Amino acid sequence: MPQNGREENGYDPEDDRNVNHDNGKHKELGELSVERLFENQEVPSWRKQLTVRAFVVSFVLSILFSFIVMKLNLTTGIIPSLNVSAGLLGFFFVKTWTKLLRKSGLLKQPFTRQENTVIQTCVVASSGIAFSGGFGSYLFGMSERIAKLSTNTHDFKNPSLEWIIGFLFVVSFLGLFSVVPLRKIMVIDFRLTYPSGTATAYLINSFHTPQGAKLAKKQVRELGKFFSFSFLWGFFQWFYTAGDDCGFASFPSLGLKAYKYKFYFDFSATYVGVGMICPYIVNVSVLVGGILSWGLMWPLIEKRKGDWYSADLPETSLHGLQGYRVFIAIAMILGHSSDHVSSQVSYDDKRRTQLFLKDQIPAWFSIGGYVAIAAISTATLPHIFHQLKWYYILVMYIFAPILAFCNAYGTGLTDWSLASTYGKLAIFIIGAWAGASHGGVLAGLAACGVMMNIVSTASDLMQDFKTGYLTLASPRSMFVSQLIGTAMGCIISPCVFWLFYKAFDDIGQLGSQYPAPNAVVFRNMALLGVDGFSSLPRNCLLLCYVFFGAAILINFIRDLAGKKWRQFIPLPMAMAIPFYIGSYFTIDMCVGSLILFVWEKINKAKADAFGPAVASGLICGDGIWTLPASILALAGVKPPICMKFLSRGTNIRVDNFLTPQG
Amino acid sequence: MPQNGREENGYDPEDDRNVNHDNGKHKELGELSVERLFENQEVPSWRKQLTVRAFVVSFVLSILFSFIVMKLNLTTGIIPSLNVSAGLLGFFFVKTWTKLLRKSGLLKQPFTRQENTVIQTCVVASSGIAFSGGFGSYLFGMSERIAKLSTNTHDFKNPSLEWIIGFLFVVSFLGLFSVVPLRKIMVIDFRLTYPSGTATAYLINSFHTPQGAKLAKKQVRELGKFFSFSFLWGFFQWFYTAGDDCGFASFPSLGLKAYKYKFYFDFSATYVGVGMICPYIVNVSVLVGGILSWGLMWPLIEKRKGDWYSADLPETSLHGLQGYRVFIAIAMILGHSSDHVSSQVSYDDKRRTQLFLKDQIPAWFSIGGYVAIAAISTATLPHIFHQLKWYYILVMYIFAPILAFCNAYGTGLTDWSLASTYGKLAIFIIGAWAGASHGGVLAGLAACGVMMNIVSTASDLMQDFKTGYLTLASPRSMFVSQLIGTAMGCIISPCVFWLFYKAFDDIGQLGSQYPAPNAVVFRNMALLGVDGFSSLPRNCLLLCYVFFGAAILINFIRDLAGKKWRQFIPLPMAMAIPFYIGSYFTIDMCVGSLILFVWEKINKAKADAFGPAVASGLICGDGIWTLPASILALAGVKPPICMKFLSRGTNIRVDNFLTPQG
Repeated sequence: MPQNGREENGYDPEDDRNVNHDNGKHKELGELSVERLFENQEVPSWRKQLTVRAFVVSFVLSILFSFIVMKLNLTTGIIPSLNVSAGLLGFFFVKTWTKLLRKSGLLKQPFTRQENTVIQTCVVASSGIAFSGGFGSYLFGMSERIAKLSTNTHDFKNPSLEWIIGFLFVVSFLGLFSVVPLRKIMVIDFRLTYPSGTATAYLINSFHTPQGAKLAKKQVRELGKFFSFSFLWGFFQWFYTAGDDCGFASFPSLGLKAYKYKFYFDFSATYVGVGMICPYIVNVSVLVGGILSWGLMWPLIEKRKGDWYSADLPETSLHGLQGYRVFIAIAMILGHSSDHVSSQVSYDDKRRTQLFLKDQIPAWFSIGGYVAIAAISTATLPHIFHQLKWYYILVMYIFAPILAFCNAYGTGLTDWSLASTYGKLAIFIIGAWAGASHGGVLAGLAACGVMMNIVSTASDLMQDFKTGYLTLASPRSMFVSQLIGTAMGCIISPCVFWLFYKAFDDIGQLGSQYPAPNAVVFRNMALLGVDGFSSLPRNCLLLCYVFFGAAILINFIRDLAGKKWRQFIPLPMAMAIPFYIGSYFTIDMCVGSLILFVWEKINKAKADAFGPAVASGLICGDGIWTLPASILALAGVKPPICMKFLSRGTNIRVDNFLTPQG
Repeated sequence: MPQNGREENGYDPEDDRNVNHDNGKHKELGELSVERLFENQEVPSWRKQLTVRAFVVSFVLSILFSFIVMKLNLTTGIIPSLNVSAGLLGFFFVKTWTKLLRKSGLLKQPFTRQENTVIQTCVVASSGIAFSGGFGSYLFGMSERIAKLSTNTHDFKNPSLEWIIGFLFVVSFLGLFSVVPLRKIMVIDFRLTYPSGTATAYLINSFHTPQGAKLAKKQVRELGKFFSFSFLWGFFQWFYTAGDDCGFASFPSLGLKAYKYKFYFDFSATYVGVGMICPYIVNVSVLVGGILSWGLMWPLIEKRKGDWYSADLPETSLHGLQGYRVFIAIAMILGHSSDHVSSQVSYDDKRRTQLFLKDQIPAWFSIGGYVAIAAISTATLPHIFHQLKWYYILVMYIFAPILAFCNAYGTGLTDWSLASTYGKLAIFIIGAWAGASHGGVLAGLAACGVMMNIVSTASDLMQDFKTGYLTLASPRSMFVSQLIGTAMGCIISPCVFWLFYKAFDDIGQLGSQYPAPNAVVFRNMALLGVDGFSSLPRNCLLLCYVFFGAAILINFIRDLAGKKWRQFIPLPMAMAIPFYIGSYFTIDMCVGSLILFVWEKINKAKADAFGPAVASGLICGDGIWTLPASILALAGVKPPICMKFLSRGTNIRVDNFLTPQG
């Protein structure tokens, strides 16, 4: 573990890579400040940040992204994050528009970075619903078409435009209201990184950087360089991904055995960048968590197959190994309570905090909003799904903010949102509670929707608050933009889905153009869930208690430990993420961390000045590549080559197969 | 093509990357000189460079390398170049020895870089014979065992220790004498790069660099860094090479279609380094040659299959496509006549030239030596192979120096030795001349041996002269070392082969531990050869004339063109190399060239100071990796994973094959 330079870079409040404690470099410190560059630019009031053109652009982009996400939902089921694309396309749309207006002398209001952030936030909120609405997963899993593919064919609820829109409206705003009161704690007090949010902010800031500042120009150039590299790298990788387990993302860089337990470097520029942005202790924590879980515990538990849990369960069943993964991870996340409150040091921090705190959203407003919507939702949801009793909903709404908090916190640390994990948890708990005979399948799937919407929105929007913080966008304008975006999404997404649903009869059919593979997976999960909860795999609950306790203990020790020692104690929340996901991304992050560490050893000043720009370039370039990649997938253009990794034995078999005479 | 900085970096006499014409940097220029660092170290007289300990170490290393090369000869048939390993191991052996002596106070003579070069030269000369002796190819191809595997079973000559040693002694020294008179022209007048030789010299110089020089220390560190990187990269690649066409060396980085025509980046650190050392025009020339041949001509000629040449010929037949490749390449190489004579500019050049010219080897001596050995050889060889008439040998010895010159020149430009191509040419010409009924098979194989020994020794030793030039080793001590090394090799290699031959009865048997795959290939080539030469594929001779003429013309234009234009005219010799080899290495070299070009654009001073060190590190690290790789191969340790590249269609078939139920 890095022993040096931790005072500036630890997980602690003092963590800010722009700060340089070296007294001899105060001049440079001044130069390194982003906000000093923008000092002469007036920050518009929050109302002025919300322009009509911003929402027009957001609306157009929302429709575009909803189409992309929906088609991916129904084809492969793999949805990339389009946040960065939203920021970038928003910029180019408005920039082109304002340029045209300026030429014709009609420009009234210049395009500010705050307005840019508003667009980005609105689009993310809106197109996020195309994912969390579950059109390819839980929601479509309720339909008759999917029911026919599973063993239980009588519990179904066919999609219809009305109830879907209604359902989305009553559940989608909850996530928003549940995290708004936490924004100060997350962004300012805990100083969480939100790597994607930070990278997006860097991108937006770099677009709007005023002319003349030499260092800033260099930073923008550095960002551009790594942005292009990362984009081209994504493009290059694409060619080798014809088929499953093909390409660099399946590269067994640590050997085939390690690959089996998800230890490999998957060449993801995004997570290398995330590793560069995250404090060292987070990277070390995820790695430790990965080794503990996938390196030690899962292989050991796997040996008990047939004893601790039934040997003939499907991979996705929470009664098997997957159960240990999910429940222990969540126990550990819940055990991780809150951390320390910080003080600011740099000019940037002061200026950003000042503006972030200027426009308040009163706590009574957000809590009141949450309670009101929860009440409406509790009253109306049983009318949509009568299997879903009002008290199930009430219980969920009591626990949801805790999970939303946990997810927003975890995303802040590692950039991983575990929304669908929490959704699956809801399937099992509510499904088991209702029971098979009382329509537990539908109840479970509906509960999944409620949970996923809250938890996923919470982490998405906290990312946006971080972006807003770093671009001096007012929390109020962000909040309004999120409200409008969510409302847009609640209408656009169901309409887009409806279009597909009505246009293609064979949606959900295996082997068709739109197989919606996740819908069956979710339905099958719900079928498993209704079998009841008593059958948690053996010792799983015990292990959950142990890890819950350990997380509390570690946190307690972290609180007691002095500043010097705290930086060496891993964070339970970060450790828990790879428990479920696998450890490959921890390798990526540690590579990023290592790059930064070596860079700091070689040239600290340069690493401090350009590290975040490089990391943002890596994250954003890869992020943008998802857009053309999605379009290629939608257009039916398939990659030409499969880069395959075979063991020597298998390779000999394959060679014999391919050249029978050889 | 680079438009800038060509005055210093063109192929012209002025080419020396250590020279900086910028007047403002004269101080730095002084610092950049290697020889100024060594100024205070006396260069020992040529007799003193030849120490007993150097030859003892050389003897030990020769035996080691002969074993390695021999075993590879008889197993895979793929022989890596062990030159760099020789330099490095020689250094560590003598260094350890002198350290021990110094501690005990017994050290009389310090270890100099000249002595190091002498060891390297001696080992290369000696272990080179394990390759050019043809124990896995033409020589073993004469044996009864191999004859039984082919259609002609009556023409054979079984190996025996006596005639092999005799044969090697009468042919191996010819290459040496044929190139000695050319050393001044190649090394000083043409200023050829000899990338491997240059890299080895950098390595040796860096080992012996006196303490205290700051820039030199930085250069050594840079060399060490890229050396380690290149070594580890070679190691990493190894894991993915279980099976044919596996691993990074088969990466279809430009697509599968381009791969079929050998256009791909094969991730070879060696050739990237070579590209960095070679002048831009050489890199451009090989690329142009590659595109012209593999991109244009061969695909076009292939379309005439069945018309221009018979469709059912084996791949290796010179009557088919391979014929065009070999003959056109050689025609072009022969058409490339000599180039300009240069003047020196830098201090390093002056000092090196002064020492290189100090100890002369008189022309009458080397020419006399060649004639004398050729006479002995012409008289004795027909006694060993009575199918090989004395006039065949005489004709070969008249033409051999020209081909030796061409090969040494080509190696100087691009690092590729085409020795085995010239050997195959000899098989065909002499075999056809003798005819099947007069033992043409054996005559052809013996002629191959004669030719390969001369041509391969010539290029190897010219590389060493370049190394000697750059380390101030006397040409006389080099020559003596080469003589001793060759003599060693003529005894060691046959003995090692004899050991294998006697110990393992099944050498040469398909499926055995020692299949000696190339022996059958060479014998079959000889069988094809005796069919006569009249059947050269259609239009091949015409194309040869055209390219021969074009090469002369291009060269003529180069001579006429002013300095400004000459740098843009490609070199026919360099263009011809990929004609036969394929274009993948041209991509590597151009990548190296591009890296250097970009580096020079960003920071010319740094690129000039560290470029050669980086390139040498890349070449030497990859070179050293061949040693452990060979040892792993000999120990039977096989790589665990195959990184395979399949088209999408094939991938689907393979996936179905591997998971029948999937």
